[in-house]
Amino acid sequence: MITQKQISLPEFSRGFHLISDFIESHLDLPDVGLLNLFIKHTSAGLTINENADPSVRADFETIMNTLIPENMPEYTHTLEGSDDMPSHVKSSIVGCSLTIPITNGRLNMGTWQGIYLCEFRNVGGRRNLIATIYS
Amino acid sequence: MITQKQISLPEFSRGFHLISDFIESHLDLPDVGLLNLFIKHTSAGLTINENADPSVRADFETIMNTLIPENMPEYTHTLEGSDDMPSHVKSSIVGCSLTIPITNGRLNMGTWQGIYLCEFRNVGGRRNLIATIYS
Amino acid sequence: MITQKQISLPEFSRGFHLISDFIESHLDLPDVGLLNLFIKHTSAGLTINENADPSVRADFETIMNTLIPENMPEYTHTLEGSDDMPSHVKSSIVGCSLTIPITNGRLNMGTWQGIYLCEFRNVGGRRNLIATIYS
Repeated sequence: MITQKQISLPEFSRGFHLISDFIESHLDLPDVGLLNLFIKHTSAGLTINENADPSVRADFETIMNTLIPENMPEYTHTLEGSDDMPSHVKSSIVGCSLTIPITNGRLNMGTWQGIYLCEFRNVGGRRNLIATIYS
Repeated sequence: MITQKQISLPEFSRGFHLISDFIESHLDLPDVGLLNLFIKHTSAGLTINENADPSVRADFETIMNTLIPENMPEYTHTLEGSDDMPSHVKSSIVGCSLTIPITNGRLNMGTWQGIYLCEFRNVGGRRNLIATIYS
Repeated sequence: MITQKQISLPEFSRGFHLISDFIESHLDLPDVGLLNLFIKHTSAGLTINENADPSVRADFETIMNTLIPENMPEYTHTLEGSDDMPSHVKSSIVGCSLTIPITNGRLNMGTWQGIYLCEFRNVGGRRNLIATIYS
């Protein structure tokens, strides 16, 4: 069986944000299956990482900005702001589509895993996800 | 229901190329489901990003080449050419497998999202994908 | 039909390791379908890359360490060791979830593709995967 639902996230500031609880609260999970989360944007992303210490998420922002700096003279796609082109590349690095196993009616992530919304724009607005569940 | 199909892409030059229309034209999409696209190569990749302005795709090539430069003295896997080892790493950074929701018989991507073939080799040849659809 | 299984990997040293045969030996693959592999950890990852020449895997380790160096003064999440925070970022770069097509009862990867366990910690211990098969 397939069920599908659009989820609109609240607006988040630039950075990495835990959204596992928000996502789970919007879904009716089957006993066994797979959840695919797909973000419909090209300057944000989804990833899974450490869910406990906020310093991890702060360092993620620092490291990604170091990897893909703004205002490099080589960039040609600059009309939409200095944070735009780096956001596109960061989005492809972390990805826009996550598939997570469901077991015993819960997302079967590790103890320390949580779902991150990666907001790469300074002002990204609300982001929309498609959640598709196979069971 | 599962359907599966191999799709052979035309040969592309090194760089990032929009293949959404080509892919959709080869598939018979169900009303609701998921499409998995898997590229059977280790020096190319698949990602989703901005579908409108070609300067985004040009900057992707520049940025990825800056991230993973050719001819670094530390590389030991050099027999297949200076573009080979960087291509392998770039492939793992963007990924080889994409899962996209299908809604109302269409790929449910955002307005600005398109599927990119990422050709990391100077001469990569034709690339083969496996498209698997669950509905 | 969905089947799901937890697979515990043997402990691997820091680096990139081919686990395709190990994974396949633990699964009963259907004729046609999809395999999702999900690693339940935030300092290791899964990717698909070149399966033949060990120098590729050695260079992967070199390049990832160059991209995300240890002991950068900007890092704030340092309590768990200098290899911890870089491991988290590397994990999100390669990803924790892989979806692979199954055709004729085999993983339908390219001739040169293999599944890598990416162990980013100096001492990561045994890693657990969830394998979910749709057919």
